[in-house]
Amino acid sequence: MTHPVSPLAKPFPGLPSIAGVTPHAVRAGYKDWGRSDLTYVTLDEGTIVAGVFTKNVCCSSEVEIGRANVKRGRARALVVNAGNANAFTGYRGREAVEQIMDQVATHLGCAQEEVFVSSTGVIGVPLPKDKARAGIEKALSAEPCSWEEAARTIATTDTFAKGATATAMVGDTKVTISAIIKGSGMIAPDMATMLGYIFTDAAVEPAFLQECLSAANLRSFSCITVDSDTSTSDTVLAFATGKAGNAPLASFASPGADAFAAAIHDVCRQLAHLVVRDGEGAQKFIAVTVTGAASDESARKVGMAIANSPLVKTAIAGEDANWGRVVMAVGKAGEPADRDKLSIGFGGVWAAHEGLPLADYDEAPVAAHLKGQDVTIEVDLGLGEGSATVWTCDLTHGYISINADYRS
Amino acid sequence: MTHPVSPLAKPFPGLPSIAGVTPHAVRAGYKDWGRSDLTYVTLDEGTIVAGVFTKNVCCSSEVEIGRANVKRGRARALVVNAGNANAFTGYRGREAVEQIMDQVATHLGCAQEEVFVSSTGVIGVPLPKDKARAGIEKALSAEPCSWEEAARTIATTDTFAKGATATAMVGDTKVTISAIIKGSGMIAPDMATMLGYIFTDAAVEPAFLQECLSAANLRSFSCITVDSDTSTSDTVLAFATGKAGNAPLASFASPGADAFAAAIHDVCRQLAHLVVRDGEGAQKFIAVTVTGAASDESARKVGMAIANSPLVKTAIAGEDANWGRVVMAVGKAGEPADRDKLSIGFGGVWAAHEGLPLADYDEAPVAAHLKGQDVTIEVDLGLGEGSATVWTCDLTHGYISINADYRS
Repeated sequence: MTHPVSPLAKPFPGLPSIAGVTPHAVRAGYKDWGRSDLTYVTLDEGTIVAGVFTKNVCCSSEVEIGRANVKRGRARALVVNAGNANAFTGYRGREAVEQIMDQVATHLGCAQEEVFVSSTGVIGVPLPKDKARAGIEKALSAEPCSWEEAARTIATTDTFAKGATATAMVGDTKVTISAIIKGSGMIAPDMATMLGYIFTDAAVEPAFLQECLSAANLRSFSCITVDSDTSTSDTVLAFATGKAGNAPLASFASPGADAFAAAIHDVCRQLAHLVVRDGEGAQKFIAVTVTGAASDESARKVGMAIANSPLVKTAIAGEDANWGRVVMAVGKAGEPADRDKLSIGFGGVWAAHEGLPLADYDEAPVAAHLKGQDVTIEVDLGLGEGSATVWTCDLTHGYISINADYRS
Repeated sequence: MTHPVSPLAKPFPGLPSIAGVTPHAVRAGYKDWGRSDLTYVTLDEGTIVAGVFTKNVCCSSEVEIGRANVKRGRARALVVNAGNANAFTGYRGREAVEQIMDQVATHLGCAQEEVFVSSTGVIGVPLPKDKARAGIEKALSAEPCSWEEAARTIATTDTFAKGATATAMVGDTKVTISAIIKGSGMIAPDMATMLGYIFTDAAVEPAFLQECLSAANLRSFSCITVDSDTSTSDTVLAFATGKAGNAPLASFASPGADAFAAAIHDVCRQLAHLVVRDGEGAQKFIAVTVTGAASDESARKVGMAIANSPLVKTAIAGEDANWGRVVMAVGKAGEPADRDKLSIGFGGVWAAHEGLPLADYDEAPVAAHLKGQDVTIEVDLGLGEGSATVWTCDLTHGYISINADYRS
């Protein structure tokens, strides 16, 4: 963590331990650094898994293998390598992943397909097999570590460690969710993004865990962007150990399923917001709410066009209520919009209404709102009932400094 | 022109005058500045017109009216207001445009529909009718001005005046094209972008002029991007006075039509390159060539995904041959690609071939290439015969400085 801590950082929360889940962190030395960079999480027998992955067609071997194996629904271990994404490394990269799966599976006496591997860092350099082998060897006999240490160990350009937690009552049983995530740049999830890991002691069927995760993803990770670039390695995995002893959740018909799905969504939204708060160079956290759209998906696309617009993001960085740039972004989104029905506001104050600047528009409260760290942009398309909120950060000199120097 | 001149600037070329075309420049005072900001170009009777316009659905009244009137194919005058885009100004904006058309048409004794108006600058402020009326009044009796003065007068955040010229032989007759353009930010043409005006003395049928312009647009303005933002006001118009006296060009079957179409394309490409060279904050001019794609259009889309990626653009700004970011951009483009067939190079040197970093990759010549002002990125997808070249600039601190301060 060599960059200054984001001004939008949140302190690491007190994450409860999850029965059946044991994190470890060691140093494999993937880069020439003193920090730990290999995270190894063991999962008790009976743990089930669900996942969402990047849609980038140049994805890493880790994503290809994980996407295939998550369908089996069973997991015994998670390995995360930081400092090397092992993406675009062809058969040599794949061999490194398979070596790690084999080494861990042999130790645990489980199937290779129950070992999930992620890697993050520079693209195009095969993960060094010797370092991976020695790192895993250390990890297999390491003492457990804290959630915060695990969150620090999966990070690369992140400036603070990120975690979230939630609980839900399933019948009389409290189930607990603890989750960590890394991500700061190359953030524009098409389906999922970044590396995020969600652990719960709930007893839940694999198909329903996948259903909850996929639904939560659509309203969290798929609604954030830092820089419109979609990573080759993005992965969010959810693991459920079943140790809470609740009656297993099989579908939304199961008692407590709604509460559990809401808790998963809550955690995903917390994690997604933390990634935006650590967006490279971010000085302001921006929520864009679009209403009156033809559909919810149309509202999300218009919101993302605004959230991805460098001219909107630099205007917010400059604390300029430049709603003309918001008009431009709405218009280029490729979604139904009618210039003469469009209303735009900041911080809850309309600046333009139904296609015209407001005659009595008072910029003072808007200017005050834009000086804060949390900025909202409201857009009403005046067409239908669709709505969505998406989140992004401003575009500042910090983004340029970080990315014109760092080789990711 | 308050920003420092782009290091990629080109001197204004010697543009020949075009028989039947007379430019004038006056100061309407749309902003509180000393420079001229109203361009008025008269066109002799018989001049025909073609145009391409922004696809932004929140377009200005100027674009709506121009798009409708260009279908009539006849033009007698062009008016360009700089400093106010008159976009998102509802009926009040429309009234200002109609006032200008009426005032000029009355003076020239032509139809209102033969007067074309463009405006560029801040969005959301209705063009002040009193300033427009007084400005037009001055323009109607002004002395002709040079092409360079006209090019300066249509500019806003541009740091240098931009023009291009070409000639073609049609039978024994030389026809001449002179053109000017403005544009620097909010540049991501979906169909056309910026304000560009092309004047020729060729005799040509309106439908064929439109065909030439549309075709040229696809390989010029539609292949550039500065910041992925598409303006509300972008317009490129081509005017042909017929004064050269050549046998009229009606289709590609007409003698000399190929040469004329090539000259139009040549001018459009020159203009498009000049806009990229004045991209806000640009320090480097980047050509991205994609080969081996499923189709030419697929190649163009992959090229634009690379050219729009902030991570690729900041890498080039940092003179970093970070081909991993190019891989990422290829993968997110949504076009057919196969990671293990992908090759990537800079300045003609392959860094990665068929999905693997080259074992004997020598970064020294690539590093030297990236230190220059003109950078090339080569991508071979290894799939088919489709190819395209697109152009962009790097993303630097200058872009942030310009856009976090200036209200556009």
